[in-house]
Amino acid sequence: MPMRDECGVFAIWGHPDAARLTYLGLYSLQHRGQESAGISTVSEGSILTHVAMGLVPEVFNSTNISNLPGHCAIGHVRYSTTGSSHICNAQPLVRNYARGQIAFAFNGNIVNAFELRQCLEESGSIFQGTSDSEVIVHLVARQKEESFLERVSEAIKKCSGAYSALFMNQKEIIAVRDPFGFRPLCLGRVGGAWLVASETCAFDIVEGEYIREIHPGEVVRISDQGIESFYPFKEEKHRPCIFELVYFARPDSLVFDRDVNEVRHRLGQRLAMEAPADADLVFAVPDSSNLVALGFSQQSGIPFDFGLMRNHYIGRTFIEPEQSIRDFGAKIKYSPLRSTLKGKRVVVVDDSIVRGTTLRKIVKMIRKAGAAEIHMRIASPPIRYGCFYGIDMPSNSGLIANTHNPEEIRRHVRVDSLHYLSVEGLLESCYGSMDSYCTACFTGQYPIDFSQLHETKFALENRALVEV
Amino acid sequence: MPMRDECGVFAIWGHPDAARLTYLGLYSLQHRGQESAGISTVSEGSILTHVAMGLVPEVFNSTNISNLPGHCAIGHVRYSTTGSSHICNAQPLVRNYARGQIAFAFNGNIVNAFELRQCLEESGSIFQGTSDSEVIVHLVARQKEESFLERVSEAIKKCSGAYSALFMNQKEIIAVRDPFGFRPLCLGRVGGAWLVASETCAFDIVEGEYIREIHPGEVVRISDQGIESFYPFKEEKHRPCIFELVYFARPDSLVFDRDVNEVRHRLGQRLAMEAPADADLVFAVPDSSNLVALGFSQQSGIPFDFGLMRNHYIGRTFIEPEQSIRDFGAKIKYSPLRSTLKGKRVVVVDDSIVRGTTLRKIVKMIRKAGAAEIHMRIASPPIRYGCFYGIDMPSNSGLIANTHNPEEIRRHVRVDSLHYLSVEGLLESCYGSMDSYCTACFTGQYPIDFSQLHETKFALENRALVEV
Amino acid sequence: MPMRDECGVFAIWGHPDAARLTYLGLYSLQHRGQESAGISTVSEGSILTHVAMGLVPEVFNSTNISNLPGHCAIGHVRYSTTGSSHICNAQPLVRNYARGQIAFAFNGNIVNAFELRQCLEESGSIFQGTSDSEVIVHLVARQKEESFLERVSEAIKKCSGAYSALFMNQKEIIAVRDPFGFRPLCLGRVGGAWLVASETCAFDIVEGEYIREIHPGEVVRISDQGIESFYPFKEEKHRPCIFELVYFARPDSLVFDRDVNEVRHRLGQRLAMEAPADADLVFAVPDSSNLVALGFSQQSGIPFDFGLMRNHYIGRTFIEPEQSIRDFGAKIKYSPLRSTLKGKRVVVVDDSIVRGTTLRKIVKMIRKAGAAEIHMRIASPPIRYGCFYGIDMPSNSGLIANTHNPEEIRRHVRVDSLHYLSVEGLLESCYGSMDSYCTACFTGQYPIDFSQLHETKFALENRALVEV
Amino acid sequence: MPMRDECGVFAIWGHPDAARLTYLGLYSLQHRGQESAGISTVSEGSILTHVAMGLVPEVFNSTNISNLPGHCAIGHVRYSTTGSSHICNAQPLVRNYARGQIAFAFNGNIVNAFELRQCLEESGSIFQGTSDSEVIVHLVARQKEESFLERVSEAIKKCSGAYSALFMNQKEIIAVRDPFGFRPLCLGRVGGAWLVASETCAFDIVEGEYIREIHPGEVVRISDQGIESFYPFKEEKHRPCIFELVYFARPDSLVFDRDVNEVRHRLGQRLAMEAPADADLVFAVPDSSNLVALGFSQQSGIPFDFGLMRNHYIGRTFIEPEQSIRDFGAKIKYSPLRSTLKGKRVVVVDDSIVRGTTLRKIVKMIRKAGAAEIHMRIASPPIRYGCFYGIDMPSNSGLIANTHNPEEIRRHVRVDSLHYLSVEGLLESCYGSMDSYCTACFTGQYPIDFSQLHETKFALENRALVEV
Repeated sequence: MPMRDECGVFAIWGHPDAARLTYLGLYSLQHRGQESAGISTVSEGSILTHVAMGLVPEVFNSTNISNLPGHCAIGHVRYSTTGSSHICNAQPLVRNYARGQIAFAFNGNIVNAFELRQCLEESGSIFQGTSDSEVIVHLVARQKEESFLERVSEAIKKCSGAYSALFMNQKEIIAVRDPFGFRPLCLGRVGGAWLVASETCAFDIVEGEYIREIHPGEVVRISDQGIESFYPFKEEKHRPCIFELVYFARPDSLVFDRDVNEVRHRLGQRLAMEAPADADLVFAVPDSSNLVALGFSQQSGIPFDFGLMRNHYIGRTFIEPEQSIRDFGAKIKYSPLRSTLKGKRVVVVDDSIVRGTTLRKIVKMIRKAGAAEIHMRIASPPIRYGCFYGIDMPSNSGLIANTHNPEEIRRHVRVDSLHYLSVEGLLESCYGSMDSYCTACFTGQYPIDFSQLHETKFALENRALVEV
Repeated sequence: MPMRDECGVFAIWGHPDAARLTYLGLYSLQHRGQESAGISTVSEGSILTHVAMGLVPEVFNSTNISNLPGHCAIGHVRYSTTGSSHICNAQPLVRNYARGQIAFAFNGNIVNAFELRQCLEESGSIFQGTSDSEVIVHLVARQKEESFLERVSEAIKKCSGAYSALFMNQKEIIAVRDPFGFRPLCLGRVGGAWLVASETCAFDIVEGEYIREIHPGEVVRISDQGIESFYPFKEEKHRPCIFELVYFARPDSLVFDRDVNEVRHRLGQRLAMEAPADADLVFAVPDSSNLVALGFSQQSGIPFDFGLMRNHYIGRTFIEPEQSIRDFGAKIKYSPLRSTLKGKRVVVVDDSIVRGTTLRKIVKMIRKAGAAEIHMRIASPPIRYGCFYGIDMPSNSGLIANTHNPEEIRRHVRVDSLHYLSVEGLLESCYGSMDSYCTACFTGQYPIDFSQLHETKFALENRALVEV
Repeated sequence: MPMRDECGVFAIWGHPDAARLTYLGLYSLQHRGQESAGISTVSEGSILTHVAMGLVPEVFNSTNISNLPGHCAIGHVRYSTTGSSHICNAQPLVRNYARGQIAFAFNGNIVNAFELRQCLEESGSIFQGTSDSEVIVHLVARQKEESFLERVSEAIKKCSGAYSALFMNQKEIIAVRDPFGFRPLCLGRVGGAWLVASETCAFDIVEGEYIREIHPGEVVRISDQGIESFYPFKEEKHRPCIFELVYFARPDSLVFDRDVNEVRHRLGQRLAMEAPADADLVFAVPDSSNLVALGFSQQSGIPFDFGLMRNHYIGRTFIEPEQSIRDFGAKIKYSPLRSTLKGKRVVVVDDSIVRGTTLRKIVKMIRKAGAAEIHMRIASPPIRYGCFYGIDMPSNSGLIANTHNPEEIRRHVRVDSLHYLSVEGLLESCYGSMDSYCTACFTGQYPIDFSQLHETKFALENRALVEV
Repeated sequence: MPMRDECGVFAIWGHPDAARLTYLGLYSLQHRGQESAGISTVSEGSILTHVAMGLVPEVFNSTNISNLPGHCAIGHVRYSTTGSSHICNAQPLVRNYARGQIAFAFNGNIVNAFELRQCLEESGSIFQGTSDSEVIVHLVARQKEESFLERVSEAIKKCSGAYSALFMNQKEIIAVRDPFGFRPLCLGRVGGAWLVASETCAFDIVEGEYIREIHPGEVVRISDQGIESFYPFKEEKHRPCIFELVYFARPDSLVFDRDVNEVRHRLGQRLAMEAPADADLVFAVPDSSNLVALGFSQQSGIPFDFGLMRNHYIGRTFIEPEQSIRDFGAKIKYSPLRSTLKGKRVVVVDDSIVRGTTLRKIVKMIRKAGAAEIHMRIASPPIRYGCFYGIDMPSNSGLIANTHNPEEIRRHVRVDSLHYLSVEGLLESCYGSMDSYCTACFTGQYPIDFSQLHETKFALENRALVEV
């Protein structure tokens, strides 16, 4: 659970109320990023932007939204990490360069960002922030091609990674999804206007209609000429991130053309089949696993109930008392419902185990509230390998499953039984096979070859001396 | 549901980390008020205070908490209404008067506040804010009695209403619960320190222990002499507000010595017995009714599921697009889970109907998401009469059940069937009888006689000329 | 010089642009107070106010001035002391009380403020700030008289002290000058509108015309009935503060019907007659003494020049380097002009000596810059006694002339000669006699009898039990 | 007078209290820029910076100064223009580039900045602000030379203009004065530490000692190797800006090795010789011309007095009343001393006439205050040509002397006589000849050939394609 996605993006083209609809779209994508929010629009040939730290309803008010007129807009919500949490990394990132203005919104991770940044700095570029996004904008600024589409395509082709990105200049919006298709990106319509968003829930709130996914490797240009598709990348096998379905996406969204709500019920059902339990009730570590726990209940016949309550008022920092309180971190987030738990044999469902530290505290809390037996069921296989594609999780050594087997983990979190969903079970619940999703965090089979990456790097550096 | 409680209070006496534990206590009472938060402590003979608009984790940080040393503290969270939402109404309210300093935290409503205020102003008092609380502090300042306890008792006896209140001077904390006992107030311990809070969940988070309710009409003084009880009021029949159990309190709290979680399951079970339905699934208008819906499911055998998702990022104001979006208000708060609802006959459980406007929008949303039949079940009787005891709800004419019968309401919200819980069913689910709770909003039988009130008012005014 | 006056006030009645003219008036009175500024207007029967810490041009902008419509206004600038420097002491002070709203602006000091405050608190009043002004407003709120004029008159008669004050309710402005006339207050006109201000420079900036002084003990009511005068006080001998002429007032003002610019030249001329010097040039400690130095030069024939430059960018606090710099305090304020001073015998003119510490530093600076001889001439007699009438200066023991004779002071500040103006010289330069001004700080003869004061206090306290 | 200089700079090397001394230095250079202030220090191998809008004492407090440890520092004050008044133009400008960090403080103007910026943007550079300074930093970042000194020298050689600049990296400070020497830059010492500042008054406040001017075209490197001088530029004739002496510099400073105070007296004396007047008194438009007026008085025997008082509390914006006030702009700044002016024939001395609009208002004010005759004397020749070297003045057509002869100007400002100082008079008063100073604004003879400039531009562009 202590994983986080990298941001949500939204775009609209051809609507008189572009900023307000983007505001609503971002609001519905808030679960993808709570650190900062921003909207850029085009009005009278120049790009207007409001970006600030905070949640969407905190960042925007009627005044600043009114100051963003225009018929097209892109928006961004950014998730919160420590360290890089600074306004100069907030997006849309807007820059002036020789050929005009560019606004940029990005969800993902560039694997060769550091190398690209070094090349650019070596030839004299000066960076303001620390984000991958700024690297991409500098690359676009260095390209000599005539058209915006070509400059963007050439720049983005130098970047290796997992991303969905939106570029806007004064005349067009370009949406790009990386050739592996790691991160989602959807196309929609509302009246005569075009929409692009990370998840379909952003279409629903503006009463828009879902058209289709933007395909892996597809570059979509939206302009006065309408909508056009381009495929500038070498083709790759599609590798959408399966955790978007398991954990990140909102259950009322379609993601990778799958119904998230349905998939989560299926995960619970499959888990009940693979790892049944003899128990009095089943409940979830709320909120993301609630639907999985329901699926488990439906398949197993064990009654569903609420064993833990989630606190929704948690702020960004929390003050701990001087004389420390047991399991403080978990207590701040969850409260046990004692009259439900007392004397019961319970199945607890969670989506994943990363470090195991919070889970251990939650288990202690449940035990102290009176549960007689605790059977832990995890809706995904053991996470053994770090992610390089835009998910904020620890590197290998920080992952408990990298160094411990399930039995050791069971003893560590102190439950009576512990079962993970199998890789096959996960894929089939998501209507897929070994070839349909990126499973690198479970299997270590990374879709992008790292040795090749480094070649790219040197090639780029050499080219840089001539071209850039 | 669009009812709100008036605030939560917390006190601690005799703990070296008083401010930090108060902070945690307030954090767990956040559901009782999100507008402002504040803490006062006593240090070196004077009262220190930090109060600001916002949520508890926004208002406090390690710096301002460190600036609140001392072994005793009182804290307050205030709920948000329009109009009176101003920092000068935030609490604890701290004032200097002839006999020193006083800090005051208040949950409830004074029915004769306006009359008292007029009396005080007539004899020269000057008010800063608009809250009932300031009236009480002015009354205390006018009393001539020697001891703080007597001054507080005499002042509060002039006030008619529903309240739980905390007074702190440099030497003692006084906790008062009105003689009808409308609002909850609990006594607890942590180590050698005394705790007072609106709900027991505030004891759990600081690892404290629940001792007992503070009784209706009880005045508790906590000081270096330990804890002492006084009963200065004329005895009245106890009339705790039953909506604390149905709706306001956190499910992991004990309130009026009842387990809220268990009561909510019982409400659902009783509702299923009184008003069964032929349906494929049952779900709640989240989050407060989830436990009721589970009780309904358990009793009826109809499977529980999630039909609506609640959005937890709602800010204090929301910008509407220019070309309006259908059912905008409901859409901002709730999202339907279409794959769950499609083609299903559903039972929807909610705790109450106030105006009926939001419910009508929610029903439209559920219908549009594909539900075949909608059977509405309400976990309380029709609310026909306004509340004068600290609950923010419309006056009679704004209550749909004041002017419409259930069949008319059913047609208005457009459901296939609509049933309310009976008054008896409600009381029995709460382990009570007609005599155990205030049921004024259902029955119109107000515990405080209004004609008597007005006599009190004139008496007070006359007395004022002499005494005050 | 390290004395400060207590505030400046301005009022206008009957002008469509009342707030803007008040803004200009306050701007021209800025030298009387730099801590806070505020304006109240009456619009549609209620009082609107903007008050903030800072200089007039910092406090007001077109937006907040536009939010102060109305045809009458009062304004206030407050001087900066440490300790009481808090927004809740800023003025106009506006309060609601039983008979409506009151706005209050005050320049001066109430000698029995502490006693009055105690009486009021004893009978239950609660104060927000620490200023004398709040006491007066509470007194007005306690009065039972029908008319605003009577309530104000009765309240102010309980106050002993030195003050010029403005009261405004929704229908009239009342201007009061204490019966001794310590502080200035002038009456003016612009078009058909009435003006009141501490100094006439505030009339000049709005193109207004000076009519006359408001007399000591006069109460002027301005309303739809025009302008009316009342004399509710027992008559007292007039004792205007002579330092308004010597030091506080702007040289382009008339104060107490005297031309300040002319008086300052006369002071210098008289000083040159009383205490001539054999020197090469004469200069002032800038800026307030420049005109006096010019008068000295004109009378003596010794050429005037600039020996010190004053720095006008000094902020409210100043950071000192760790390894201390000689005469730091003086250096921050003044810079010597070495090419002027080098090898010269100089006469340095200052208006007064309070503690002597800064002067000693200035002398060192002048000496170090190369002056051969330094002859100090002071445009007032030795200040031996503290002021109780609104001037912020040290009590007796902090005054160097209270404990040292002129020769000792000369040795302390290390000048070659030091001469003070005589009391007669001062009075005659100001066109007055021993009976025309308050000379308490030179002579110790205080116009208000302190023993009488204390009787007043007890009388008030006893009355308070009955009346208030 | 409505001319403004571009900024003041200060540097210190080798002092344990570097930030605090820089703070004092900047404070004494405040007259050179009131818009923003900033300090950068080097601590533990990285550059720390605090920069904000406002005056030096507003920008810095003990906390932020304490957060700037280190033994070397550079600081900057920036003057206020409309438009470019934005924090991202505030200095020191600090940037990361491939070879580390650079802090930069700049006083002056780069004539070919626009061309350089275009070249840089064409090859992909992205700019944050709009200042010339950023162009220079980008140039430094593009240089490939090994040493900081060489990179700085090569970069600055591409810039044509008038400037004094400070560069700091983690190991050295480099001070540069352009080859014409337009703007001043001085070298000093305090104890064992080195100082660099725009004017010597900044040495005085830190008790430092003036060593010498940094020569036109000199590049001074200060590092652990001590102090070294380099002369990388083609030699040019020296052309210091004579207005630094007439108007900009503080009178207690040495500038271009001249004593400003003495020069200003000499200007007045010469003016009295060239253009005597028959009058009763002489006074200045304060404050900058006071010393000139004194010189005039000394030479002519006409008594000096104060005819105008200057208001020192003017903010950055000023609200005008709706019904306009005559000569509002002048009235806000100056107040006439009527008792001095009444019935007198006066000589008014000012340093220069730019547009003539303010002077016309001042004259009206003096006349209205009662002056019988007004004889205007200007301490510089007619300004006929705009400045390209860092002085903010109007272009040719905005200069009244570009389009009008002195007699026409006299009639326009409505004085009885008007005389300018001759170019020879000006130069001789400043101890110089036609060859000693830039006199472009009087004569139109610009030291830098503009046609040559454009060649430079194209050369740079071509080089850019290869080198940059």
